[in-house]
Amino acid sequence: MTISTENQTSYLFQGNVTAPGSQVVSGKGIHVDIEKDGVVYENVLDAVTGAAVGALAWGDEDVFEIMDKAARESTYQYPSLISNKSAEELAKFYIDNSEGAFCSALWCCSGSESNENALRIIRQYYLERGLPNKVKLISRESSYHGFTLGAQSLSWNPRIAPFEPYLMDRKNVNIKISCAYTYRYKKKTETEEDYTHRLLQELETKIVENDPDTIAAVTVETLPGSSLGTTPPPKGYLKGIRALCTKYDIIFHLDEVMCGTGRCNPNGRLNCWENYLEPSEAPDIQTVGKTLGSGYVTIAGVLIGPKIRNAYVQGSGAIAGGHTYSCHSFNCAVALGVQKKIKKENLTSNMFKMGNLLAEKLKDVLLAYDNIAGDVRGVGGFQSIEFVKDRNTKEAFDISLNVGPRFKAICFENGLCVMGMPANPDGSCSDRALLAPSFVINERDVDEIVEKTNKSVKELSDILKKEGSW
Amino acid sequence: MTISTENQTSYLFQGNVTAPGSQVVSGKGIHVDIEKDGVVYENVLDAVTGAAVGALAWGDEDVFEIMDKAARESTYQYPSLISNKSAEELAKFYIDNSEGAFCSALWCCSGSESNENALRIIRQYYLERGLPNKVKLISRESSYHGFTLGAQSLSWNPRIAPFEPYLMDRKNVNIKISCAYTYRYKKKTETEEDYTHRLLQELETKIVENDPDTIAAVTVETLPGSSLGTTPPPKGYLKGIRALCTKYDIIFHLDEVMCGTGRCNPNGRLNCWENYLEPSEAPDIQTVGKTLGSGYVTIAGVLIGPKIRNAYVQGSGAIAGGHTYSCHSFNCAVALGVQKKIKKENLTSNMFKMGNLLAEKLKDVLLAYDNIAGDVRGVGGFQSIEFVKDRNTKEAFDISLNVGPRFKAICFENGLCVMGMPANPDGSCSDRALLAPSFVINERDVDEIVEKTNKSVKELSDILKKEGSW
Repeated sequence: MTISTENQTSYLFQGNVTAPGSQVVSGKGIHVDIEKDGVVYENVLDAVTGAAVGALAWGDEDVFEIMDKAARESTYQYPSLISNKSAEELAKFYIDNSEGAFCSALWCCSGSESNENALRIIRQYYLERGLPNKVKLISRESSYHGFTLGAQSLSWNPRIAPFEPYLMDRKNVNIKISCAYTYRYKKKTETEEDYTHRLLQELETKIVENDPDTIAAVTVETLPGSSLGTTPPPKGYLKGIRALCTKYDIIFHLDEVMCGTGRCNPNGRLNCWENYLEPSEAPDIQTVGKTLGSGYVTIAGVLIGPKIRNAYVQGSGAIAGGHTYSCHSFNCAVALGVQKKIKKENLTSNMFKMGNLLAEKLKDVLLAYDNIAGDVRGVGGFQSIEFVKDRNTKEAFDISLNVGPRFKAICFENGLCVMGMPANPDGSCSDRALLAPSFVINERDVDEIVEKTNKSVKELSDILKKEGSW
Repeated sequence: MTISTENQTSYLFQGNVTAPGSQVVSGKGIHVDIEKDGVVYENVLDAVTGAAVGALAWGDEDVFEIMDKAARESTYQYPSLISNKSAEELAKFYIDNSEGAFCSALWCCSGSESNENALRIIRQYYLERGLPNKVKLISRESSYHGFTLGAQSLSWNPRIAPFEPYLMDRKNVNIKISCAYTYRYKKKTETEEDYTHRLLQELETKIVENDPDTIAAVTVETLPGSSLGTTPPPKGYLKGIRALCTKYDIIFHLDEVMCGTGRCNPNGRLNCWENYLEPSEAPDIQTVGKTLGSGYVTIAGVLIGPKIRNAYVQGSGAIAGGHTYSCHSFNCAVALGVQKKIKKENLTSNMFKMGNLLAEKLKDVLLAYDNIAGDVRGVGGFQSIEFVKDRNTKEAFDISLNVGPRFKAICFENGLCVMGMPANPDGSCSDRALLAPSFVINERDVDEIVEKTNKSVKELSDILKKEGSW
């Protein structure tokens, strides 16, 4: 079959496949110009940087110079046979800024690829140790680890259901535990510690019931992103998982693709887990992405702790094959330049401070009067608002009301980019908006985000009230 | 556990995890400088461009300008919500140069991701049509479609075996047929047409036995790359698969990640299948990568034919979610610039002519005297040499002799980069070397590749003879 494509308005197979939808025109600092339905919306404040990507904001002249230099100094070769200095230097930088937690790294092109590679590395780790039966993977309900089928197997949300025939077998290798979601699932009669205890008991029961000698890894997002809306782990939860992994000889895998690499670090460094764990409790393997290249290049990575590396060193010492574009020298050189600038300008500390200020101000404003905002939560530069029909019962909106995406659209009309996620069809999670601004924002920007967000919450609350939906 | 990494010589977790191995120092045109064990090997002729990647050769000043301009004109946004013009333009370019075969495209970061997305698109295609039971995927033994777990499920080679617990179920969804490998598996009593007929009969039997109403897609590499060493499909084979797919309402998926985008096109265009199929017989979906960005950027893609797009348009019209770095505007803009330069300078035609000349000269030289080269084969810019113990019996070398990788190392000492693949442990495929030079090579370069290749074949033949292995 051949066809004429003359009348098509879009040639891309994503989002709405029949229309080009919105297009980004340009960006400068924390503002973007976006074309939508033929109209250019100028100077929209980008409070989510795509999808928690843009640490350095847009149109950074220093980055353009870094990119030009990197282009001229990089030559592609197949990296697992002929490597390059930029990949080594980026690995050393990340390791040096992770408090002794890691000793090796692999760079790839996306968060999905980073989690796929983590699974391969975990599998080979047990083969190196002569433990081929340690294959089962434990991960959480309402989680997101990427768009490829291995990464989707680790994940769970209703949009994944259609792809189940291609996912890992839920009986034999793909074990799910509850998510940690204090706002919705901590019982009123429980303390935060009680809730943690209950979650850890569930995990230990799953480990024991499934035979610890067959469990390979536990994978969790340190701070879940789009899946749950930046629900911080309850007190002692990550420490408890770490302890259970150690007790039963299981790999502890943290996914920090969305929350890591400076977005939520309290000490001006890279890792989100520093909010909850000592360096001695660090994950055995960690995946990262997003802010690593800040949107200028497509890069993500896997950080490897000594437990894993040592098994390989004492075993075969080698990994067969690899992606064509692993450890891509140009991407690595640009990411290194971006991370060095962030470090030099102390932008991680700024993001942590401004992000927490943003959360405080949002709470003060939104929770002070009657509207659809039920919870404001997050850590540092990664914050969410959950929308509920009733603040007391926390009842979720019906998915057909499309509250999350509609909130996003109203924010856009008010000159603000946010992420708007729909509720789960089963009511297990309500609609939410995510904020993940650039690390460069200042107090005035925070106030502008708060003002526009509040205006949008108020407008949507009024509309839903008029419709009789709230 | 925390550690000191001071004494490590490499911080990368790929290839040999304890040593940095070789590193690329620089590249200019078809030559690269490579550092190995502290020695810089200068001006090595790059006859494989990493892994069949570098169409435009290295250090191209025009590309550096394209990259600088693209960097300054690109702003990242999450593409399935806010797209960009560069992605649209690259899609239009590929569609316009594909003889009416395709009408839509999705860009991603790697060949693995392109095949993962193809699987998702195929799955949703049948859901859009209300055919949820069409889930089974047919692909080939001795194939390679990527490093992520979905793409690995489509693939098969002995190195994949350790990851089987995480791959798709061989009973329910993951059906394998024989590879098409004329040199080794066409019986002496068969004509090429007989061999094709036998392969197509096997496919039709598999389709019928497994219930056509449950078969989703047939996936093959138009010209297999690293998996088999550029074995061209026997006469009528791809036409026959196309006809069976049409007959049984099955998606025909060609993987051209390694062989496509100008490497093997006879008409100065993009697709390898133009060697074997009319535009009216084009695949319903096609995956591409490698030369698309020519190593300067990390980009790959999925091309969508009208059969698939129409089902979506008549159905939901929408795809939920997507990779953070799908349709990355900078990557798309650079790839478009690279492809426009290739087209303007007619480099695809040059590659086809020079590649076929290279094959003829290699055959003339290598097959004229007694050595380990058993077969020289390929199409245009993608050629292979298969090494055998005995040209008559085609007996493979024992895998422990490591003939492919050793050939690569000898070539390197002789100033030539090639890819050296080991034999399969079961003897189903012998060692082979792959050549995939830059599209810019001229006759003098061809002669130099032939001379260095021949010298290396002779040296390795002599070594193996001395060892008593040949």
